[in-house]
Amino acid sequence: MTLNRTWILRKRPAGHVAPGDLELVSAELPALDDGSVRVRTIYLSLDPTNRIWMSDAKGYMPPVGIGEPMRGGGLGIVEASRFDGLAAGDIVNTGLATWALYNDLPGKSLSRLPQIPGVPLTAFMGPLGVTGMTAYFGLLDIGRPKAGETVVVSAAAGAVGSMVGQIAKIHGCRVVGIAGSDDKCRWLTEVAGFDAAINYRREDLGTALDRHCPRGIDVNFENVGGAVMDAVIARLNDFSRMPLCGLISIYNATEPVPGPYNFGNLLMRRTLMKGFIVLDYLKRFPEGMQAMAGWLSAGKIRFETDIVQGLEHAPASLERLFTGKNLGKLLVQVSDGP
Amino acid sequence: MTLNRTWILRKRPAGHVAPGDLELVSAELPALDDGSVRVRTIYLSLDPTNRIWMSDAKGYMPPVGIGEPMRGGGLGIVEASRFDGLAAGDIVNTGLATWALYNDLPGKSLSRLPQIPGVPLTAFMGPLGVTGMTAYFGLLDIGRPKAGETVVVSAAAGAVGSMVGQIAKIHGCRVVGIAGSDDKCRWLTEVAGFDAAINYRREDLGTALDRHCPRGIDVNFENVGGAVMDAVIARLNDFSRMPLCGLISIYNATEPVPGPYNFGNLLMRRTLMKGFIVLDYLKRFPEGMQAMAGWLSAGKIRFETDIVQGLEHAPASLERLFTGKNLGKLLVQVSDGP
Repeated sequence: MTLNRTWILRKRPAGHVAPGDLELVSAELPALDDGSVRVRTIYLSLDPTNRIWMSDAKGYMPPVGIGEPMRGGGLGIVEASRFDGLAAGDIVNTGLATWALYNDLPGKSLSRLPQIPGVPLTAFMGPLGVTGMTAYFGLLDIGRPKAGETVVVSAAAGAVGSMVGQIAKIHGCRVVGIAGSDDKCRWLTEVAGFDAAINYRREDLGTALDRHCPRGIDVNFENVGGAVMDAVIARLNDFSRMPLCGLISIYNATEPVPGPYNFGNLLMRRTLMKGFIVLDYLKRFPEGMQAMAGWLSAGKIRFETDIVQGLEHAPASLERLFTGKNLGKLLVQVSDGP
Repeated sequence: MTLNRTWILRKRPAGHVAPGDLELVSAELPALDDGSVRVRTIYLSLDPTNRIWMSDAKGYMPPVGIGEPMRGGGLGIVEASRFDGLAAGDIVNTGLATWALYNDLPGKSLSRLPQIPGVPLTAFMGPLGVTGMTAYFGLLDIGRPKAGETVVVSAAAGAVGSMVGQIAKIHGCRVVGIAGSDDKCRWLTEVAGFDAAINYRREDLGTALDRHCPRGIDVNFENVGGAVMDAVIARLNDFSRMPLCGLISIYNATEPVPGPYNFGNLLMRRTLMKGFIVLDYLKRFPEGMQAMAGWLSAGKIRFETDIVQGLEHAPASLERLFTGKNLGKLLVQVSDGP
């Protein structure tokens, strides 16, 4: 008999996630179905999109139902298998599973993670995971940066933003990141190789963008929305591109939020803006992972993880994303690794 | 000695164009330069973009300078020529000229309009002119409508919108127009062949869109902005497209205007939105004109013109665009045709 622990959504958060919105319940696991695999979560991925799933506003997927386990992805180790292709001890990405210690999942939906010398397991939650693929396809497929162009990325020290900037550097661009602390900005320029980083909480963003983007902005990789987005849109060049990846500033809003006041500039500059969800690129993940693994092995991609210990801290830790506390990929360590 | 009459921009309008913002002056024309052609304006085209040119907000072209002739295009007859390729009596499109009875223009920038049996001269200001090309390239190049999809167009009875809907019908789409009067809506469904038309001043737009777009909206050809745009964005389908052609609702604004409150839905639906200016497609005009001329000759395209008599009425007539008075292409007849 194995006891599972699972976060259940009890009510839709009003604004920020509060105690009582989710409940951690313990329950005995049923017998493992034929064709299924029991995966013990090592790392649970926390992402801004988790907050979208808790809301009943029309998102890109159905919301998590009240009384249902909270949806989430992570990386785990196979504890038991009734599927031919996987065996106990295999490390797998759980894809869309739940915030739980154990997930019983159809074996055919999983694949064993490759072992790459010198690359730690956490890379599969970062550059080689969903956030890395988000950065890779959003920037290259929609942003289409050309050498010499200026790329701006908001939430630049986050899991996606930090990858976007480094991929843009590899493509010969001038890269300017926007982040919320001096520590993050220092990491962006000194470790991640950004040309400049702006602490929007300390500097006037418009003035700083003017200084760091003397030739205007060709690509705006948008993660944030609100006033930060407005300042960037005001400085876009003709025929600029704007991958619309996230709007983290509005996910906790309880009142309607106006779109960019500079919306008209998207017309005047003939900007191409496209919303995207990384799952749209699922079939092309092998291409993205191969490229990212190559850059990672070559030392061209640096990444950080912000690891919280213990499944019980998952809901409260999600707030770190919205208050700008995390540097790099935010993970919950749910159990020990191999 | 030939006396010209020209509208001069005297000051930047605050909100709507008011008496005194422009002044009609008479002046003797200088001798015609070698290589130039003197064109007497027959029709002056009035377009929402004229209002953008009067403003010093950052547009897609430099604003008209204070004290300079108002910029505008039209169709005219060559009165005198010092350019080998054109002779008196030729009919030409003036391109970007001025609000004047006469324009002296470099001959090499002009081309003689073809004569198409059964097609009146005004067609070159409508389906075969800049507004027709705006509809053609914006819809087909950015909107990429597929047969069976639902296309919504705002300002649908205007010069651009009425063409957009008819081109979409030719491509097998369900077409819903949004306009501001019952007369316009009747014209859209009974003459122009739209599947449905919504008078947004009389009906609740959201309810009407739900009724007329039971399978959601695949293409939003945006001419208006504001609350009309918000209602359409809320109903976009996954992977929808949104050619951003105009935002006529904000051109007279004197305060910052918020972008769409449903901006987040452009992300969730993975909408491709692209601003464009018809001049971006200048090199492809022959392709567009050939297609439109074919449809026009085949009776597949209907168009209306709203003709105001007399150059002296140009500034006041521009208001017809912003108050929704015009049906079809708004022109000022400046002098008699051939």
